[in-house]
Amino acid sequence: MLCFVETDAELSAETAELLLGVTVKRSFDRATVDGQLSTNDTALLLCSGASGVRVAPESEDELRFGEALDALLRQLAVMMVVDGEGAARAARLVVRGGTPEIVEGAARAVANSPLVKSALHGGDPNWGRIVQAVGGALTDTAPLPVDVTIEGMQVCAAGAAIPYEDAELDRLVQRDEVEYEIGLPGEGAETEVFFSDLSQDYVEFNSAYTT
Amino acid sequence: MLCFVETDAELSAETAELLLGVTVKRSFDRATVDGQLSTNDTALLLCSGASGVRVAPESEDELRFGEALDALLRQLAVMMVVDGEGAARAARLVVRGGTPEIVEGAARAVANSPLVKSALHGGDPNWGRIVQAVGGALTDTAPLPVDVTIEGMQVCAAGAAIPYEDAELDRLVQRDEVEYEIGLPGEGAETEVFFSDLSQDYVEFNSAYTT
Repeated sequence: MLCFVETDAELSAETAELLLGVTVKRSFDRATVDGQLSTNDTALLLCSGASGVRVAPESEDELRFGEALDALLRQLAVMMVVDGEGAARAARLVVRGGTPEIVEGAARAVANSPLVKSALHGGDPNWGRIVQAVGGALTDTAPLPVDVTIEGMQVCAAGAAIPYEDAELDRLVQRDEVEYEIGLPGEGAETEVFFSDLSQDYVEFNSAYTT
Repeated sequence: MLCFVETDAELSAETAELLLGVTVKRSFDRATVDGQLSTNDTALLLCSGASGVRVAPESEDELRFGEALDALLRQLAVMMVVDGEGAARAARLVVRGGTPEIVEGAARAVANSPLVKSALHGGDPNWGRIVQAVGGALTDTAPLPVDVTIEGMQVCAAGAAIPYEDAELDRLVQRDEVEYEIGLPGEGAETEVFFSDLSQDYVEFNSAYTT
C-alpha cells in the first residue's frame, strides 16, 4: 500500500505526525486482506500550506482537521479491503471484552481465519467457525462464554447456540458487507477489524504468476 | 481428525500415554492445513495385549515400539497434509535458529501464510514471500539475516538474494512435495512443519456449503 494524502492547510511537522499517527491506527491498522504485512506499506501526509490557513496545535481547527483525516483514512482502509485481492465480500468485526490483548488476539484470529473468510465468501452464516477461531486464539479458557451476533442477529450466547431465524440470517449474510460482533467475558476493551473474504480469485491472483 | 491406532502388544496405561504424547508432538502437532484447530482433533492408542507380548517400561522393546509408533504417526500426519482440503501440493519446512520460540513462530508464520501457500500451489519459487512471513513474525529484528533454501538450492543468504539457477528451481518447485529450509541467527533450536498449499478447491470446499 502506498497512501499519499495532500492538503493545502498549514500544519507543523509535529501536528501532522501526531494526527497521521493517530488516524493510521484507527484505519489501515484495522484492515486486513490476508493477514500479511507488506514490506512497503506507506502512508504520507503532505501539507503544502498553500491556502495560508494555519492549523494550530490544540485548536478547534486541529480537532476538525483530525476528524476529516480520520474519516478519509477509514474510508480508504475500507475501500482497500473491499478491493482486496480477489475480494467479493467484506466484513466489519467488533470484539468487546476485558482486556485490549484479548480482544485484539480474538479479532485477528477471526479476521484471518481461512475458514471464516471462506464462509464469508460463500454467504454462509457459519458462526461455529467464528467460535472455533476465538477458542483457538484464547487457549486454556474452556469453556468460553462467547457471544456472537451477525448483522444484528444474535446466534450464540455464552458459548451456546440460541434460536434464530435461519432464513433471515441466510439472507443477511448475502450482503456485500457483513457485520459481526463478538462478546467476550469482561468489560472495558473494544476493537474492530475490517477484513475481506477468501475467494478462488485470491488463489488465482497469488499463484498464477512468478515474481 | 480422529486417529485410532491399535496394537495387540501389552502396554501399561502409563507407557502408552507417554509414547503417544511424545509421538503426537512429533507428528500431528507438526502438521497444518489452514492453521485452524479442529474442535474434535483426537488421537487414541488402543493396546489389547492379545499377543501376550509385554512392552516393559525403559526396555529395548519400548524403544522399538516407540520408533514404530513415531514412524506411523509421522506418515499419517504427512498423508493428512497431502490429503488436506483441496490440496494439490505439500511441503516440509525446517527452521533452525537460536531459540525454540523464534523457530516455532517463524515456522508457523511461513506455513500458514496464504501467500506462501498460494505460491506453493502455483509452483512458484517465490522466496520473497517466505522472507516476508519470517519478518512479519519476528518484529523489531530488522535487518534480519535469514537464509532460505528450497529443495536443497540456497536462494537467500543473510537476508540478501544470491545467484541461483532459475530454470532449475522452477523445475524443482513443480514437485508434489517441496522442501524449504530457513536459517535464523543463533544455533541450537530446530523445528519442522508439514503444510499443504492453498488452492481454489480449498475455497470451493469451504464456501460452497452451509453447516
